[in-house]
Amino acid sequence: MKPIRLGMVGGGSGAFIGAIHRIAARMDGRFDLVAGALSSDPTRAASSAADLGIRGYTSFAEMARLEAARDDGIEAVAIVTPNHMHAAPAVAFLNAGIHVICDKPLSATAEQARQIADAAAESPARFFLTHNYSALPMVREARALVAEGALGQVRLVHAEYLQGWLSDEVHNKQADWRTDPAQAGAGALGDIGTHAWQLAEFVTGQTPSHVSADLSSVVPGRPIDDDARVALRYASGAKGGIWASQVALGMENGLSLRVFGDRGALDWRLGDSERLIFTPKDGPAQILTRAQDRSGSFRTPPGHPEG
Amino acid sequence: MKPIRLGMVGGGSGAFIGAIHRIAARMDGRFDLVAGALSSDPTRAASSAADLGIRGYTSFAEMARLEAARDDGIEAVAIVTPNHMHAAPAVAFLNAGIHVICDKPLSATAEQARQIADAAAESPARFFLTHNYSALPMVREARALVAEGALGQVRLVHAEYLQGWLSDEVHNKQADWRTDPAQAGAGALGDIGTHAWQLAEFVTGQTPSHVSADLSSVVPGRPIDDDARVALRYASGAKGGIWASQVALGMENGLSLRVFGDRGALDWRLGDSERLIFTPKDGPAQILTRAQDRSGSFRTPPGHPEG
Amino acid sequence: MKPIRLGMVGGGSGAFIGAIHRIAARMDGRFDLVAGALSSDPTRAASSAADLGIRGYTSFAEMARLEAARDDGIEAVAIVTPNHMHAAPAVAFLNAGIHVICDKPLSATAEQARQIADAAAESPARFFLTHNYSALPMVREARALVAEGALGQVRLVHAEYLQGWLSDEVHNKQADWRTDPAQAGAGALGDIGTHAWQLAEFVTGQTPSHVSADLSSVVPGRPIDDDARVALRYASGAKGGIWASQVALGMENGLSLRVFGDRGALDWRLGDSERLIFTPKDGPAQILTRAQDRSGSFRTPPGHPEG
Amino acid sequence: MKPIRLGMVGGGSGAFIGAIHRIAARMDGRFDLVAGALSSDPTRAASSAADLGIRGYTSFAEMARLEAARDDGIEAVAIVTPNHMHAAPAVAFLNAGIHVICDKPLSATAEQARQIADAAAESPARFFLTHNYSALPMVREARALVAEGALGQVRLVHAEYLQGWLSDEVHNKQADWRTDPAQAGAGALGDIGTHAWQLAEFVTGQTPSHVSADLSSVVPGRPIDDDARVALRYASGAKGGIWASQVALGMENGLSLRVFGDRGALDWRLGDSERLIFTPKDGPAQILTRAQDRSGSFRTPPGHPEG
Repeated sequence: MKPIRLGMVGGGSGAFIGAIHRIAARMDGRFDLVAGALSSDPTRAASSAADLGIRGYTSFAEMARLEAARDDGIEAVAIVTPNHMHAAPAVAFLNAGIHVICDKPLSATAEQARQIADAAAESPARFFLTHNYSALPMVREARALVAEGALGQVRLVHAEYLQGWLSDEVHNKQADWRTDPAQAGAGALGDIGTHAWQLAEFVTGQTPSHVSADLSSVVPGRPIDDDARVALRYASGAKGGIWASQVALGMENGLSLRVFGDRGALDWRLGDSERLIFTPKDGPAQILTRAQDRSGSFRTPPGHPEG
Repeated sequence: MKPIRLGMVGGGSGAFIGAIHRIAARMDGRFDLVAGALSSDPTRAASSAADLGIRGYTSFAEMARLEAARDDGIEAVAIVTPNHMHAAPAVAFLNAGIHVICDKPLSATAEQARQIADAAAESPARFFLTHNYSALPMVREARALVAEGALGQVRLVHAEYLQGWLSDEVHNKQADWRTDPAQAGAGALGDIGTHAWQLAEFVTGQTPSHVSADLSSVVPGRPIDDDARVALRYASGAKGGIWASQVALGMENGLSLRVFGDRGALDWRLGDSERLIFTPKDGPAQILTRAQDRSGSFRTPPGHPEG
Repeated sequence: MKPIRLGMVGGGSGAFIGAIHRIAARMDGRFDLVAGALSSDPTRAASSAADLGIRGYTSFAEMARLEAARDDGIEAVAIVTPNHMHAAPAVAFLNAGIHVICDKPLSATAEQARQIADAAAESPARFFLTHNYSALPMVREARALVAEGALGQVRLVHAEYLQGWLSDEVHNKQADWRTDPAQAGAGALGDIGTHAWQLAEFVTGQTPSHVSADLSSVVPGRPIDDDARVALRYASGAKGGIWASQVALGMENGLSLRVFGDRGALDWRLGDSERLIFTPKDGPAQILTRAQDRSGSFRTPPGHPEG
Repeated sequence: MKPIRLGMVGGGSGAFIGAIHRIAARMDGRFDLVAGALSSDPTRAASSAADLGIRGYTSFAEMARLEAARDDGIEAVAIVTPNHMHAAPAVAFLNAGIHVICDKPLSATAEQARQIADAAAESPARFFLTHNYSALPMVREARALVAEGALGQVRLVHAEYLQGWLSDEVHNKQADWRTDPAQAGAGALGDIGTHAWQLAEFVTGQTPSHVSADLSSVVPGRPIDDDARVALRYASGAKGGIWASQVALGMENGLSLRVFGDRGALDWRLGDSERLIFTPKDGPAQILTRAQDRSGSFRTPPGHPEG
């Protein structure tokens, strides 16, 4: 299988998530980064591209047009810009027939989200949103357990994503755009609450029908929410809640999900991500891991990729 | 120091919390159970009292009157009846000048609560409500840390009390009165949510100024709440939440409290009750235990009661 | 059932384990402490007995003789003296036909142990050694699992008891006799290694046939072992180890047991004593608790003493 | 910085650790796999190389000779064969002046180890052994704490590596060579005990001066050790132990290290690898993480690679 030729928008030197994307793209050898509009600053865009040994562009629009025209042009693009800069490049690449892998949250405004949705609907290319935690093995196991009925009817859902790095007024490249309503759209709710929301949806297979959210700016003067409590109601009768905070002092990446059904329950925490606690109604809690297939056998070295 | 002569209302054979109270009363040798109106059923009241070797009564009113008249009468009474039967005996004993140790929640109705409050205000005797978890060493340490400013200004409070034993429609002596609105007054919120509420109040030293509660009867046909989510606002600007559930399948006694301030944070869980995680703003999380005094020395055998 | 009339040897004011025994004896109401030779110091013996409101003696020999002669004399005696003072009173009370509840370890020397064994063999009274951890519910569950074959053939056993309170040269009443070979007989191995040894024996039902012990005095100048590593071999072919240390800085009561068989495994830790991890060969690890009967149902409030 | 041109010996289709090496080599973009003698089977060697798009060889000796002669030849080679096949290719590549990254354990026999040592001593190229766990951030933090004196003088060291996948007689590609004395040299001790040994050495900076090992073949008929207990003595006076087992049923990758000094203690476990528990003598246990620099500040998103 030949690697997919990948482009990137954003992710120049000094950026955070772009570098993470590049590491992830390299891991399984299925992507080959060949082009990028890595920065809105032309000099930085050029030097960052040179550092990576890829074709550099100073404009995503130009990149979409020229790459679409090349025989060896990119097949997919990763958009790793601040939230308000997702929609424009996403639409441009979708219109050019190039698959889009877009960082979450979808956009800074509902209007931008609709633009992306419309472009995706009309494009032969596909649009992907990087809710990365749903790729973790035990999260997928959790989803499978719910899907196969091991929890029975889902009754209670509780997802949290707690961080503490914005407990103070902080100024640096990452904090600045994330706490700027114009660039971020939403604060804690958008930056990490979206992960919690999607995790709950991915595992339960249900989307809440009603929400009631209590957003706060805990740090004085912060123009965006840094703590969000959301009450959820589902059409199925299930209820739940999401708590997302970036002022939970001391917390690093406190993502967790608990789901209680009438036949079983699940508990998963990112800090112990390789274990999934599953409690069936008629037996003790079980510690599920990926090294263990459903039959419970351990016959190969743990982590063995090929059996 | 002579033991306090103790009476008991409720707690006859087959009861739950009465037996627990008796064990607790014996532990430190400071109480001596000498009398009881242990059941509303006269035969059971008599046989239960005989089993315990104490003076038996078939009426709490008579017990209050006669014990108050004896030179060796009880000095305090423990009321361990279902919630709707707290107020009448509490008032009777308070009026008789006998101290009252009353099980939580205070009562089944607000009117009953007012009756108790009025009687307590007029009585020379004292009234105690058994929020037992606030006696745990690390809970007291948590309270001390908040009080001395180690957390700075409290911003976020989250308390949970999750049980799963009412996940199904259950019928037994304990379940029946706890799910009967007439006897219990409230369901999960009253039975265990009160513990979470009091824990948060005890540790933070703050009472919420506003609440918004979402009570549900998750098990079909149950006439009382079995799941409660409560959003809290404090006059100080702090916010928080309580989640109390008795349909959280698989959970036994999932009481926990997390408090985040602007200078530190606390995390305590009943399932690991001897440890308190304290994260100061300027350092790593610390695992506090009672064997350790503030200076961190371990110079006597752990648990040594006398140094 | 009338309470058992209990006496105590040792446990005067300033002692450690005597006070613990008295709390434990009171908890279930089955013992009534009525007499004691609480101290080798006559004044302290008298004042301690007066404080407790019991018959005081200044000599255990006299106590054994006089109590045996009384109609309301003690039926059992708890011996809570330092190790070298177990044998003499144990023999005296056994000879007087009074049951003996003796603190562990059995004695300070093998000769003393033989004296106790001989007296117990000839006495109508019974002799009990207080290996208290074997009373914990999940330890008993562990033993039951091994006994019923859930682990298959036991292969590996590992028990630890780690404390850190003797990491330095410490001088106080508790440390002094525990680090004095004449009074203690053995150091870490005798004081806490015995608990680990007994726990392994109690759960597996097997006694090692061969041992190889590496005892050290880690703190310079300490005349007794403060760290012990013991390799074990069993007649069944199983092997194992015990690690007991009182210089494991920061550890409080780090007692734990792991047992691996050919069909299942167990992991239990005192710091999380209400949970027992059981891993069957053909399935995921299970978290066993006492609130849960074998069928996994949770139909009464957790901890419910009467069902 | 240009990527290092990397070759590989072993790691053809069906192999375990070779694929892991390739993932790791891709992650940070500093290696470029360009050549390989991926299998001792010529057909598999060719097809595996074709699958990876690299220069394929059927002989490591030929590969060493030809790659050394090319201008664009490999600069380093990863040797990922079974243990008995480490020495010959290692010597060949070292003799050809090509750096060697060799899987652990070093070799199947002491004689082979000496051959590698001699070749490395005479070669301008460097020789690396892949003790991968020492690259984990909290392991490095542990080493730094010991080096800077935070533990004072190290007294007790205990390392474990417990797996359960060989609890039964197992036959598959991985199990077969690992339990064959001719190919593996040693069993549990060599396969995973080496990790525990190296971890202890890496963190403490000390090599034991004396060892006493108790090796067993727990599974009947197994011709190699599957459980090893090793007692350690250090020249410094410290003592310790290693327990390595592949018949610890239910364990997956139970690697852990505990170090106790006279001024502090460390506890690290692979299953919770992002946290390091450090207990200083004069304060509570601390939970160290990599998101936290020594000053305890959390000012960037957790995991932020560029500040």
